[in-house]
Amino acid sequence: MSGKDKKKRVKPQALKGFRDILPEEMNAREKIIATVRQVFESYGFNPIASPALEYKEILCGYGDEASKQIYTFTDPDDKEVGLRFDLTVPVSRIVAQYRDLPRPFKRYQIQSVWRYDKPDPGRFREFIQFDIDTIGTKSLMADSEILAAMNDSLSKFGVKFRIRYSSRKILSSMIKFAGIDEDLTKDVLRVIDKLDKQGLENVKLELGQGRTDDSGDKIPGLDLNPDQIAKIEQYLLLPNSERKETIFALRALLGDVEGAESNIAELEQIDQFLRAMKVPDENIVIDPSIARGLDYYTGPIYEAILLDAPRFGSVMGGGRYDKLIEIFAGQPTLVVGASIGVDRILSALQFLGKMKSRAAVADVLVTVMDKNRLTDYLKLAGELRAAGIKTEVFLGKEGSIGKQLKYADKQGHPFAIIIGEDEFNAGEVGLKDLRKIEDMDEEITDRDEWLKARVGQQTLKRTALIPTLLNLLK
Amino acid sequence: MSGKDKKKRVKPQALKGFRDILPEEMNAREKIIATVRQVFESYGFNPIASPALEYKEILCGYGDEASKQIYTFTDPDDKEVGLRFDLTVPVSRIVAQYRDLPRPFKRYQIQSVWRYDKPDPGRFREFIQFDIDTIGTKSLMADSEILAAMNDSLSKFGVKFRIRYSSRKILSSMIKFAGIDEDLTKDVLRVIDKLDKQGLENVKLELGQGRTDDSGDKIPGLDLNPDQIAKIEQYLLLPNSERKETIFALRALLGDVEGAESNIAELEQIDQFLRAMKVPDENIVIDPSIARGLDYYTGPIYEAILLDAPRFGSVMGGGRYDKLIEIFAGQPTLVVGASIGVDRILSALQFLGKMKSRAAVADVLVTVMDKNRLTDYLKLAGELRAAGIKTEVFLGKEGSIGKQLKYADKQGHPFAIIIGEDEFNAGEVGLKDLRKIEDMDEEITDRDEWLKARVGQQTLKRTALIPTLLNLLK
Repeated sequence: MSGKDKKKRVKPQALKGFRDILPEEMNAREKIIATVRQVFESYGFNPIASPALEYKEILCGYGDEASKQIYTFTDPDDKEVGLRFDLTVPVSRIVAQYRDLPRPFKRYQIQSVWRYDKPDPGRFREFIQFDIDTIGTKSLMADSEILAAMNDSLSKFGVKFRIRYSSRKILSSMIKFAGIDEDLTKDVLRVIDKLDKQGLENVKLELGQGRTDDSGDKIPGLDLNPDQIAKIEQYLLLPNSERKETIFALRALLGDVEGAESNIAELEQIDQFLRAMKVPDENIVIDPSIARGLDYYTGPIYEAILLDAPRFGSVMGGGRYDKLIEIFAGQPTLVVGASIGVDRILSALQFLGKMKSRAAVADVLVTVMDKNRLTDYLKLAGELRAAGIKTEVFLGKEGSIGKQLKYADKQGHPFAIIIGEDEFNAGEVGLKDLRKIEDMDEEITDRDEWLKARVGQQTLKRTALIPTLLNLLK
Repeated sequence: MSGKDKKKRVKPQALKGFRDILPEEMNAREKIIATVRQVFESYGFNPIASPALEYKEILCGYGDEASKQIYTFTDPDDKEVGLRFDLTVPVSRIVAQYRDLPRPFKRYQIQSVWRYDKPDPGRFREFIQFDIDTIGTKSLMADSEILAAMNDSLSKFGVKFRIRYSSRKILSSMIKFAGIDEDLTKDVLRVIDKLDKQGLENVKLELGQGRTDDSGDKIPGLDLNPDQIAKIEQYLLLPNSERKETIFALRALLGDVEGAESNIAELEQIDQFLRAMKVPDENIVIDPSIARGLDYYTGPIYEAILLDAPRFGSVMGGGRYDKLIEIFAGQPTLVVGASIGVDRILSALQFLGKMKSRAAVADVLVTVMDKNRLTDYLKLAGELRAAGIKTEVFLGKEGSIGKQLKYADKQGHPFAIIIGEDEFNAGEVGLKDLRKIEDMDEEITDRDEWLKARVGQQTLKRTALIPTLLNLLK
């Protein structure tokens, strides 16, 4: 590829609707993923992975709306194939295909999915999904431990959150209680699902005669009668801040409905299991009004919101869906699972200022002042790494300290080490603190004083460097 | 999705040439990836990710053989797109596209790539690549620290290995030394590259008149004259077990060739940098005979082999390729990088018995004997998790202890906890050691005694359980 056979230059651009993830964002995502994964592993969930490409027939197995969004094509073997659009289809196939998987089978899967969708700012055609499922058990311990693990994960992010659970079965009891035809269940739940976003009055209008939305479009109603709507309203207004109280109120409202008691008892059983696992009561509530959009849920349903960032919606959610895998397995297969909204959590934490990420994973940049001492810089770096300090040596053109510190500052290295001829001869090192005030946990009382102290370069004995850094990085 | 609208069952199968990765293998892979990644992060390499789909024009930018293996199709926007077949094209595009990336830019990327290739046992059309690059520096410190990081990574796997390095420039000096036309360089290197697999005699035949291979096919030769071949042989037989000795021998052989001295000095500079970083001498040698197949290398080249598993070939390898990114960037861009062969390392470690992986990440299975005590089992599990012990509670149908222990044994949980009514009342727990002899590090002198002791269930005071387990898991 010398000058004479140089090829025409290709314009460098990512495919429309897709994006690259550069170090600063990758490091933040990796932190979130590692945190949640570690928690779910501590509950005994194990990783699996599946191919990006599947037979089109498999991807379209559920035959629903999603099919339209699937990237499909004919592969060189002349097979109709497509890129997976979720991780539920692959795990369904896997469970049906490998008959000797243990039961229960507890898996998690963190992989990209692809959807041909209208690209919006912040909405991409490839995104990561992080799904967790327990397959093959009807025990409510399975549902409860997913709730507990959600609690444990969110607790690690230092933000206020609330996990709300309910059950599709309770919603069915409510439908019965309101005297609504069972066939209307799906439509009623679809409307109830809008409660958080549209508010109670709009939901009531949509249950009844319909309404006109902000842009003047007519949204047709379900034509329920006022008594039915009043009963749904009673249900939606049940207390939802304390689990025992909600259970008591559910019994009071629905106690006479046939079959309701066993559905309430399930919610109560989960309550007991959560307390056994010492999940703080205030973190998980029963909220009868949640409906979860997807109509494949069959039992408990749940979702988590960040209390100071509600506009990001549900950051984790899931439920029991005992019939979905049937299409591959040929018979109902008990499944309870959750999805972790990695990108939503990231956006919300960034919005709340709780995600301090930097492009550089390294803790220290060793600047290079003296090109005759390269081996000495590398030697020092080796010693720092051996002590567990992530250390980058500046590999660009040596010399200008300003340029190197600018590099460190841009990349977000918290510390830089500066050693010139004098320091080498004196057995000393210069240590520069590059941390930004906004990234510090400490209270800054006198900003000027602090800044002066911070940007001031300490000179240390070489022997004191590692203990000092380890202490600063603690 | 009730009985009446049940859909036709779809046969569950992965696409031909693709595979699912189930927990036991995933856990092993994750271990390898985490180990190597941690090492490279300690050198200041940062993660990036790129989309699976790219414009076809970009993927085919290099116009080489690879293009034939790319999965391409027309997307719903009517654009010609394809699945990435390596991670070098994406990083080249990224470096050209984002002009404000820091220089040097040190990245690693761990993502799947897709190649339409003849599927063989153990060879798949989707596989993970793990690439590391330092972009934008000519400093040999960059090459040296990749070698050092390769050493640090491989050292963690507990196997004997050797990293060999050389340089494309030295090979050019050798071509000059042998009096071979520069235009033949690529062909000569292609033949030399076969040295490990075909042996010296076959290489010499292919440099000369050609040979007939085992299946009777004629392999044409390069028609070099005997003097030229003798000179190449001299070069290939240079000592390669001790860096200083190799440098001395290179000077003796090539010292008079124009330009060779500065090329030898580069290898020597790397030698010095490696010693500064305290890389054990025996782990990295200079081997003038390595050529590395890909013809885009322009400077140092290197590869690692496992000494007790040579048939797995190079498990990590790379080099400097300063001109490849030119196609996107419009100008030569300095790059030095390496690829980690995750699947090869995994296969080799499994072959050497050095990868003890299990399907279960959990350390302990809490079996469930008494269905009236479910909250007590969950409470215990919560306490174990709080102490940092990964704990799975058996979520299947409670009762049969045999079935539950079989589950643990199959999944590879090292320990099981058994508590029935009596133990609950006495404040005791039964602890069963399920580890297999082959997974134990200790020397077993009396297998029968050990087995008896091992399968024997200890009964402990409940208060002693956590300290005992933490000690056993250390």
